[in-house]
Amino acid sequence: MKKFSSFALTVLFILISLTGYIPNTNAQTLSNKKITGYKKVAKQFVRRALEDRKGYHLLKELTDIGSRLSGSENSIKAIYWAKQKMESLGFDKVWLQPVMVPHWERGNIEEAKIVLSKKYNGRKLAVRALGGSIATGKNGIQGKILSVKSFDELRAKKDQAKGKIVFFDRPLDQGLYSGGYGGVWSYRVFGPDSAAKYGAVGLLLRSITTKFDNVPHTGVTIYSGKVKKIPAVAVGYLDSDFLRMALKKDPNLEVNFKLNSKWFPDAKSFNVIGEIKGSEFPNQIITVGGHFDSWDLGVGANDDGTGSIQSMEVLDLFKRLNIKPKRTIRAVLFINEENGLRGAKVYGAYADSSPQKTIAAIESDAGSGTPRTFDIDSDSLTIAKIKTWLPVLNETGILQIKKGSHGADVGQIKSAKARIGYAPDGQRYFDYHHSDNDQFSIIHPREFELGSAAIATLVYMIDREGL
Amino acid sequence: MKKFSSFALTVLFILISLTGYIPNTNAQTLSNKKITGYKKVAKQFVRRALEDRKGYHLLKELTDIGSRLSGSENSIKAIYWAKQKMESLGFDKVWLQPVMVPHWERGNIEEAKIVLSKKYNGRKLAVRALGGSIATGKNGIQGKILSVKSFDELRAKKDQAKGKIVFFDRPLDQGLYSGGYGGVWSYRVFGPDSAAKYGAVGLLLRSITTKFDNVPHTGVTIYSGKVKKIPAVAVGYLDSDFLRMALKKDPNLEVNFKLNSKWFPDAKSFNVIGEIKGSEFPNQIITVGGHFDSWDLGVGANDDGTGSIQSMEVLDLFKRLNIKPKRTIRAVLFINEENGLRGAKVYGAYADSSPQKTIAAIESDAGSGTPRTFDIDSDSLTIAKIKTWLPVLNETGILQIKKGSHGADVGQIKSAKARIGYAPDGQRYFDYHHSDNDQFSIIHPREFELGSAAIATLVYMIDREGL
Repeated sequence: MKKFSSFALTVLFILISLTGYIPNTNAQTLSNKKITGYKKVAKQFVRRALEDRKGYHLLKELTDIGSRLSGSENSIKAIYWAKQKMESLGFDKVWLQPVMVPHWERGNIEEAKIVLSKKYNGRKLAVRALGGSIATGKNGIQGKILSVKSFDELRAKKDQAKGKIVFFDRPLDQGLYSGGYGGVWSYRVFGPDSAAKYGAVGLLLRSITTKFDNVPHTGVTIYSGKVKKIPAVAVGYLDSDFLRMALKKDPNLEVNFKLNSKWFPDAKSFNVIGEIKGSEFPNQIITVGGHFDSWDLGVGANDDGTGSIQSMEVLDLFKRLNIKPKRTIRAVLFINEENGLRGAKVYGAYADSSPQKTIAAIESDAGSGTPRTFDIDSDSLTIAKIKTWLPVLNETGILQIKKGSHGADVGQIKSAKARIGYAPDGQRYFDYHHSDNDQFSIIHPREFELGSAAIATLVYMIDREGL
Repeated sequence: MKKFSSFALTVLFILISLTGYIPNTNAQTLSNKKITGYKKVAKQFVRRALEDRKGYHLLKELTDIGSRLSGSENSIKAIYWAKQKMESLGFDKVWLQPVMVPHWERGNIEEAKIVLSKKYNGRKLAVRALGGSIATGKNGIQGKILSVKSFDELRAKKDQAKGKIVFFDRPLDQGLYSGGYGGVWSYRVFGPDSAAKYGAVGLLLRSITTKFDNVPHTGVTIYSGKVKKIPAVAVGYLDSDFLRMALKKDPNLEVNFKLNSKWFPDAKSFNVIGEIKGSEFPNQIITVGGHFDSWDLGVGANDDGTGSIQSMEVLDLFKRLNIKPKRTIRAVLFINEENGLRGAKVYGAYADSSPQKTIAAIESDAGSGTPRTFDIDSDSLTIAKIKTWLPVLNETGILQIKKGSHGADVGQIKSAKARIGYAPDGQRYFDYHHSDNDQFSIIHPREFELGSAAIATLVYMIDREGL
């Protein structure tokens, strides 16, 4: 920290009064010479990532295994693939950290159709079980529809809910630059309980998506146990439009839907961890992670195969460029972010009680778009310090460092000095999210690889400049 | 501009010495109240653009007409479509500005194959004429291949060029965050002449692209007239890989390629111009434009149907929100950016000699990606002023205002106080550029529409705050 004489402090005070300028005494800018050197390294990370496309090819290998829902056979296959891959990349230490995870399976029956309607009888609706939904029984759940747009509207119409299927016809708000998800996710998570409370027998949820297609998006739903559990499905966006229209013409139509999803006892699983040991401060850990589990629709290429592979590639980029970190760089592939956060809790407890200190924990769980922002959760001096690195991070496409929220997993590392979220361009994110659309083919190699380079550059800056 | 007393100046001087802080005396920040108000308008632009997707649907209509190469029948159809559309959107004044444009047609023969090779005889290569290439004659151009990676290498091997076909096997440098195009475009533009100078009879150019597919990308090539004109084609990226490999195994193979492209006399065409008259300063013009011509491959959805439609939509967004501009806002769809810049020259001469003053000219010709940056070509005080608007522009996804280069068209408005380039995310730009890949389907509605909102917000800020 720069030290000011009392004279200078007086001058500062006068200036602040005059101009409103508040100098950040902590944010000592880097010398031009240092910046030049760091930019060179950043450009090398970018070049290696973009030319080699090594992470992109690893992501192809991973997604070829299939989806990776916690507790599934595939997830275990993928975990061993990742461990073997980290070993073959020559990380100093690779290990599996045991985690017990919830185990739910979708089953093979997901059907819905309109019944008891002259006009629309037999019309099928594209549906997918919400993650964790109970099954319906063989004959399915059937009832008239109570269509509402919000919890408030449901409460106002609670007397009409009994014996019906509630349809939350609430599109993601597309009129926002970002944040539309914030207005809908709670309907998926708490929708079934909110409807069951008033005697509803099932739940239809308009698919949470930014894409006008008919691919239903799943995601976790939670039963509190305080009310009867009712089965719940997402309805494709276009079929939700259809149902909305049909209900106008025939409010008394009924819908029948069938699920044979199933809950199993908790299953044994693992976080996958690999590290390169620091040469000077091996007990200072810079963690970079993504979550390794995915939903069981699609193959979780974007959510969050991307963050998992980028985390591995960050370490590999250090190796490819033959850069020896001073601090220990650790890639953590957290299991069970989607429906339990169990991996993050196990790792967080481990890290918080370790004699090693996590100085920064970076998560990539916002997709594979072009780099834009790092969101920092730390004290203001630390944020100010990271802001002085922006000219270096610019080389990778990062245009902004700001106070903000990180991924859910690194949030469990309470002792970390900084928790950081990598926030790339996300305009396409909810086109794919938790659905069959989340395939390898939607990953753009340059955008994806720039993410690896951006995170590697941030890790490098933390490694060299400390936090 | 804020005025400082001599005491304050002394204090400032001391502070500058102590901290290196140089206050920008021009960049008077906006009051919080003003910022709040402006942000509200920016959010409305975003909401209307994203919810209505009106520009996106207009782009569909435009690209349904087809490609719009200068001088083509399609380009004239599209020009009248745009004029009619601007009229139906209710702009105050709409007119066509006559421009004579070059007229070249690709013809219907574009073939290339390997001949006189035991191993590879008859192997076809995917080729497309470079824009402006002469035809080959019925029997095609045939010759051995001189493969080089640069002008320097060609010069070094000039004695081997006579009677041969030069193959510029020079991939776009993918190892850069951006700027790879800067290292290759001159080979397309000046390649034929550089090869003809040493007696070559034809030119093959590895397609300039970031996508590993086999779709050749065209673009303008220029004959100086000082050497013999030789025909020139782009070769698909994958077939360029094949040819590279084949030449290693059989350096004496020959290639035969055929084109029946044709030059015609200059044709009559038009810039399309529409405006909303300013209520207070009608003689101050804020121009927003894109180029309306495209290459004849694909449909020019990204390059530059995007910029053309965004320009129209900016005016329409003012109308949709019922915002009356104080200054005149003018959309200019420039014809012939791709192979002549004739429309820009005609418009520039008109604007520069008009009693009306162009205070800012914004071009969108960098594709349909998510907003990132406005590049400003103006004096430093003007740039500093625009920088103070960043908190407002942030609402639309803009994260950066910097000194930089604008589009080619607005560069012809020499009298403009500021020439501004809209610079969205461009990682996919050269996947599509000048090729059959440039289709409506590659436009992402949210990313595209945010461009309209970002430009509308900048126009609004210039309108309210002046420049």
